[in-house]
Amino acid sequence: MSTTKNKILDIALREFNKHSTRVVTTNHIAEACTISPGNLYYHYRNKEAIIFSLFEKMVSEWDDEVLNLENKSPDEILYQQLNKTFECIWKYRFVHRELASLLDKDSALKKMCNLVFQRRLKEIEGFLQLFEQMNVLRPLSKEQRGFIAQTALYYGLFWQPYLEVVGERPTKKNVMRGVQMIQLLLEPYQRVSP
Amino acid sequence: MSTTKNKILDIALREFNKHSTRVVTTNHIAEACTISPGNLYYHYRNKEAIIFSLFEKMVSEWDDEVLNLENKSPDEILYQQLNKTFECIWKYRFVHRELASLLDKDSALKKMCNLVFQRRLKEIEGFLQLFEQMNVLRPLSKEQRGFIAQTALYYGLFWQPYLEVVGERPTKKNVMRGVQMIQLLLEPYQRVSP
Repeated sequence: MSTTKNKILDIALREFNKHSTRVVTTNHIAEACTISPGNLYYHYRNKEAIIFSLFEKMVSEWDDEVLNLENKSPDEILYQQLNKTFECIWKYRFVHRELASLLDKDSALKKMCNLVFQRRLKEIEGFLQLFEQMNVLRPLSKEQRGFIAQTALYYGLFWQPYLEVVGERPTKKNVMRGVQMIQLLLEPYQRVSP
Repeated sequence: MSTTKNKILDIALREFNKHSTRVVTTNHIAEACTISPGNLYYHYRNKEAIIFSLFEKMVSEWDDEVLNLENKSPDEILYQQLNKTFECIWKYRFVHRELASLLDKDSALKKMCNLVFQRRLKEIEGFLQLFEQMNVLRPLSKEQRGFIAQTALYYGLFWQPYLEVVGERPTKKNVMRGVQMIQLLLEPYQRVSP
């Protein structure tokens, strides 16, 4: 990817996070990048294309963060994986803050999202099965596994809008509390150590 | 409340649910009510005022649905209460579908929402404590009670946008599946019957 293309994405992410995609225009972004609007349009035909690219970037960074499980204790895996996940959510916080309305406005983004998050559900279920095999979690029914995976993904996706609805500020500290929520979710299914 | 005022709210709810608050205009609503735009403005100064009133109506209906607990078994209470809650969510589905963006656009609505949902959290914690006293749930730590109450409210608030994100249709059947999710949430904390 060209340096300018990357720079546009970095600056757009900063501006979208700081304000919202509703108020930040491509002219804003071009100005903050110290390039002309024409140069920006050469790389991205409109704001939606920038949002789409940022979304793809987020997904691929999240994929890269899936830990190498070798030589790690289950507790390390779980804690590190959750931390990396919520760090990624914080980095791309505008996506999570505006998720519902972004998808409502862009059907291609919605289609991509559907595929990505269906895949995430399967990945989380895979993690759970691994923890069952490792005797960290007790054997789960298919229904329980589905519920836990879904609730974990749910916390990943809507934790920020939830904070706003109940009147808590979506600071990094509060967003990272999502890690704790998923630990509490798993707690009753953990095997009691002998 | 005048008949016209009520009619405007009923029709607006139907139209917002069917389409979205973004595309439905006050002119649409007036036309569907077979009244003039001027008559509509006499009752509600703009679309935001209609949305605000619908929100208040939803909250007060939800408050009325909180069950009288006398002469009922805990299972009945839980199942009926959850069903009534998700019926209410379905009835006002546009609110839940668009929650984040509605609050982003209207700070008075956000303020009201914050107060209402903080209160809901306390109410759900009260329910949980009652179930603990009734020996339906095992004694919970403050942290567990907080987590369960929050996750239950979370399911109430963002279940519809979640369905859309993972590519499931937000039909009544799928929305009502939220009842099951909250039952699965409570399951590991239930006392095993002797």
